[in-house]
Amino acid sequence: MIAVLKQGTTDAQLENLSSWLRAQGLDVHISKGETHTVVGLVGDTAKVDAELLESLEIVDSVKRISEPFKSANRKFHPDDSVIKVGDTSVGGNIFAVMAGPCSVESEEQVMEIAKAVKAAGATMLRGGAFKPRTSPYDFQGLKADGIELLLKAKKETGLPIVTEIMNANHLPLFEDVDVIQVGARNMQNFELLKELGRTNKPILLKRGLANTLKELLMSAEYIMAGGNENVILCERGIRTFETYTRNTLDLSAVPMLHELTHLPVIIDPSHATGVARLVKPMALAAAACGADGLMIEVHNDPAHALCDGAQSLTPDTFADVMKSVGRVLDAVKA
Amino acid sequence: MIAVLKQGTTDAQLENLSSWLRAQGLDVHISKGETHTVVGLVGDTAKVDAELLESLEIVDSVKRISEPFKSANRKFHPDDSVIKVGDTSVGGNIFAVMAGPCSVESEEQVMEIAKAVKAAGATMLRGGAFKPRTSPYDFQGLKADGIELLLKAKKETGLPIVTEIMNANHLPLFEDVDVIQVGARNMQNFELLKELGRTNKPILLKRGLANTLKELLMSAEYIMAGGNENVILCERGIRTFETYTRNTLDLSAVPMLHELTHLPVIIDPSHATGVARLVKPMALAAAACGADGLMIEVHNDPAHALCDGAQSLTPDTFADVMKSVGRVLDAVKA
Amino acid sequence: MIAVLKQGTTDAQLENLSSWLRAQGLDVHISKGETHTVVGLVGDTAKVDAELLESLEIVDSVKRISEPFKSANRKFHPDDSVIKVGDTSVGGNIFAVMAGPCSVESEEQVMEIAKAVKAAGATMLRGGAFKPRTSPYDFQGLKADGIELLLKAKKETGLPIVTEIMNANHLPLFEDVDVIQVGARNMQNFELLKELGRTNKPILLKRGLANTLKELLMSAEYIMAGGNENVILCERGIRTFETYTRNTLDLSAVPMLHELTHLPVIIDPSHATGVARLVKPMALAAAACGADGLMIEVHNDPAHALCDGAQSLTPDTFADVMKSVGRVLDAVKA
Amino acid sequence: MIAVLKQGTTDAQLENLSSWLRAQGLDVHISKGETHTVVGLVGDTAKVDAELLESLEIVDSVKRISEPFKSANRKFHPDDSVIKVGDTSVGGNIFAVMAGPCSVESEEQVMEIAKAVKAAGATMLRGGAFKPRTSPYDFQGLKADGIELLLKAKKETGLPIVTEIMNANHLPLFEDVDVIQVGARNMQNFELLKELGRTNKPILLKRGLANTLKELLMSAEYIMAGGNENVILCERGIRTFETYTRNTLDLSAVPMLHELTHLPVIIDPSHATGVARLVKPMALAAAACGADGLMIEVHNDPAHALCDGAQSLTPDTFADVMKSVGRVLDAVKA
Repeated sequence: MIAVLKQGTTDAQLENLSSWLRAQGLDVHISKGETHTVVGLVGDTAKVDAELLESLEIVDSVKRISEPFKSANRKFHPDDSVIKVGDTSVGGNIFAVMAGPCSVESEEQVMEIAKAVKAAGATMLRGGAFKPRTSPYDFQGLKADGIELLLKAKKETGLPIVTEIMNANHLPLFEDVDVIQVGARNMQNFELLKELGRTNKPILLKRGLANTLKELLMSAEYIMAGGNENVILCERGIRTFETYTRNTLDLSAVPMLHELTHLPVIIDPSHATGVARLVKPMALAAAACGADGLMIEVHNDPAHALCDGAQSLTPDTFADVMKSVGRVLDAVKA
Repeated sequence: MIAVLKQGTTDAQLENLSSWLRAQGLDVHISKGETHTVVGLVGDTAKVDAELLESLEIVDSVKRISEPFKSANRKFHPDDSVIKVGDTSVGGNIFAVMAGPCSVESEEQVMEIAKAVKAAGATMLRGGAFKPRTSPYDFQGLKADGIELLLKAKKETGLPIVTEIMNANHLPLFEDVDVIQVGARNMQNFELLKELGRTNKPILLKRGLANTLKELLMSAEYIMAGGNENVILCERGIRTFETYTRNTLDLSAVPMLHELTHLPVIIDPSHATGVARLVKPMALAAAACGADGLMIEVHNDPAHALCDGAQSLTPDTFADVMKSVGRVLDAVKA
Repeated sequence: MIAVLKQGTTDAQLENLSSWLRAQGLDVHISKGETHTVVGLVGDTAKVDAELLESLEIVDSVKRISEPFKSANRKFHPDDSVIKVGDTSVGGNIFAVMAGPCSVESEEQVMEIAKAVKAAGATMLRGGAFKPRTSPYDFQGLKADGIELLLKAKKETGLPIVTEIMNANHLPLFEDVDVIQVGARNMQNFELLKELGRTNKPILLKRGLANTLKELLMSAEYIMAGGNENVILCERGIRTFETYTRNTLDLSAVPMLHELTHLPVIIDPSHATGVARLVKPMALAAAACGADGLMIEVHNDPAHALCDGAQSLTPDTFADVMKSVGRVLDAVKA
Repeated sequence: MIAVLKQGTTDAQLENLSSWLRAQGLDVHISKGETHTVVGLVGDTAKVDAELLESLEIVDSVKRISEPFKSANRKFHPDDSVIKVGDTSVGGNIFAVMAGPCSVESEEQVMEIAKAVKAAGATMLRGGAFKPRTSPYDFQGLKADGIELLLKAKKETGLPIVTEIMNANHLPLFEDVDVIQVGARNMQNFELLKELGRTNKPILLKRGLANTLKELLMSAEYIMAGGNENVILCERGIRTFETYTRNTLDLSAVPMLHELTHLPVIIDPSHATGVARLVKPMALAAAACGADGLMIEVHNDPAHALCDGAQSLTPDTFADVMKSVGRVLDAVKA
């Protein structure tokens, strides 16, 4: 970690600063340039509060050389993490595909979709029981009943299930859920992350709408610091000025995260684009750039059927996507 | 609410859609143009799920004419809300100033700052007891002990206190807190918002880093829909590409929110800029454009004093800001 | 085009507005709702100034139903455009690959790279002669001499050349250039676009750092409105808050643009990411999601060689990328 | 300037890099840490190409300690620049107010507005003759005729005139224009900036939609490096995700730019917000935070009058804004 001091910093100030830093267990190296003094810090700098340091009047700027994440850092864990989920896994040689309805609506709906996505090659069933909605007046999900329905579908098809948690107090309801999802809006709900760190469930952590990759990794670190190393990262689009798509899918996050961390990275093209027609091309692109899996919305409900289709894919379109994804995966492995 | 249908929509599809919408209690007006058909919806459209509607295959786009927020909407509540806080208030004729340390660190610190900011004219004491930090390795606040210290300072100075909540399970600790703050990262922690809607405490709701004003109002709506109308909005900077400042303070949010809602709007220039030298000019600008108050960090702790100043203001600088703010308030009222 | 009027608009105001709109040759359809009046406009609305209309006091908002671009619009030109470039082309069945050095530096450099990229399968040679640089103190390119060197390499290898123009007055120097590039910073340099519209050269138009797809198409429209329909669109990353990559590559632009326009769309992964290690995965992703080609930086200069590599690819790495791209293209075609 | 090298850099590589840097006239200081080596560069680092340096394979990251702008840098020119414009000026003790129509439309219009804004206290007349429009089908301005009309208004009222240039070839038409404006879309049209650097006219340089303050200063540097030090900076809103306002006005740019540069900084609240009702509060905020002036749109044309008002202010509203601005200026000076 390097701190560049402002011009005009006095020797007394420099000495004060150095003492304070040494008291935190760091080695302090000072090099005075023509105009600025640079302070190099060596030691366990992950525990240094960079914001506090940068806020000091004599400090011009602070630059981390080591990344502040440790458990998630590939440097200390060079091999890819493989997260076991039932009989399948995420990461390593498995290309995980979590497919299912946006919201669980009825037993018939979830059962039908579960069978269809399994037939098409999905490795897990996803479905929303607790739904974070911008408006308090929008449908908030079937909650506990939704989880029950997912568990029925799991029993029937054997597919492990993935569903979102919004409140740590609901954890008892997630006893038999295979992967617990943390949504984009809760990526920095640190109290929730800490609670999930105390479980041993695989956690699917979605990147927040305006969060950097570093912040995503620091949120993974919250879970891992609690003892739960089973974290799956998910890029689902970030907020930009573009309006043709709901969000902007940042696919360069895949190779960049693979460089920074050993955790698996999956892509959610459904939420990223908000446009069903873009799900296939983005799913193929995700497979091509090395993603460890996909999360895709597949629907089969009457409200949508009524109007001949919808944002999420139909089981048939999903099956078509799966075939093409398979070909791309073969092509990049070859 | 208007839905524009895609070219090529058949009469049967249109009829299906209309039936589905009428079943939701809406009047449906259809006007066919040369290329597109436009469907106008009249009735309680706040409860229509615009995203679901837009996701239908035959729908090109959806446009709300009425805003989806109701309790927060100025149209249905033309007068400014005045939120009572102890003997003072936020909104109306009072210019609220919440000042105090970023984190509560010790009794001596909080007491000294509380007295100083009161003397300078602050109307409330702010201080962090539970601190949301990007890194799990950074200081997370004194928690319950921090609240105790704030309450001591309240007893001593008579200043109502404002402090942040991160977990609804902590609510019992906030029994004697005057204003409960929801931080930017929790603006869309809907479970927390719902719990706060069941209290009758004034809630200071900060705008998320990448949230629109409409989303901010929908989050206020979550609290108000639960029965708690005591919501104070706070703009504290949004995330942009600019790096000289920590965030970009969006001051046009003040007059725009005043137009959209009756709730009071305050500005936090400390977090918005991350630079102590910018707090004064931005505080003056906030006062000039009609903000209902300010939230300002003031410190007095040895770690910072050691290095001759810090990001937050000293009590003396704060007193100077207050004087200038007073003059600007007089100028705009004149 | 639909204009929603504000509540309280009087009949006289509505009549004034209608007359003014009819005078512009439009049919005006008025439908009064409970709270708002909606004005539908039918006719050549591409020529209506939506910003002016929206600025009127009685207008709440304006929504275009037809897109404002015409020549570039796929609706009026359903078949993919194929832009002829020498013996090759961009669009249609050809996957165009424009490769070469960021800046042309010497005859030896450009000749060596040209031969190498041709051998690896590039269809065109790219190279910067006029370089837009943020700082006036940075190297601005070899200018006319750089174009001369590119032409020599073209003569030697037969590869058509692509190079950037920054000033319409330089057009005579581009006489023998095959594709003229408009850089991201000049995407809305309308005077330059108009001049290029008067030529019959293929124009490679890069998306601006903070420009929407609609604005990109409107800039293409500037060129096409002048009579030059040979426009190639290029996505090269947009500006977001993420800092690990130089820009954020928006790959969903590929299928979205293909839906909106008949013009070919290529991807520049080198500028988009600013990180050589990310070029290959992003090139594969571009091929997978249907891009019509790639623009890739390949270097071979001593300054970089000195330090064992650089941001752009070496000829060997480029050849490896080309092989993998070929496999992905086969996979998605299959 | 500091370059942090990657782990695993060999001594030979380090020596190569050092030689290459010394050959550029720099002193090179090497300090080896436990994991990383840090290279400090001393000398005229403004001429070092940071992007090239960062692109080297062995370089992890580069950090400038001195800013790359020189002529615009306050460090080398501590006093505020005062830009003379006719009998008035921008910067120093004068609060400059440039007011007038968005587009010059007719002699009657411009003359009437010119007189009105002068009476209200404007120090200059602004008006668009060449108009950059997103669509080629929108009105592009009266061009040379527009400038003629502005000059007539100048003759009549004595107000210096400000108008936008879009093409360096038009410079002869700007002979008698007092301040030449460079619009946001041309902020990085470096060829135009260089030409303007060869004139001695005051240049009003608007910040680009997605440009950082550093890039704005580097563009000023292009003009100043050519010998023209008469640069006025203008913040006019940046592009963000918020949609209630057209852009997001970044008022913290005012004090931040004042710290970084000696050049005057003005605010354009009309373009920043796109909403007439927000112009007054934002103008007051600009005055409160230390801006050196304002650029405000004032209209008086029949198309707008027809509909009882418009986005830009009427002369009466402008006069009201001017009075309030005066009071705020007095308050902050007091």
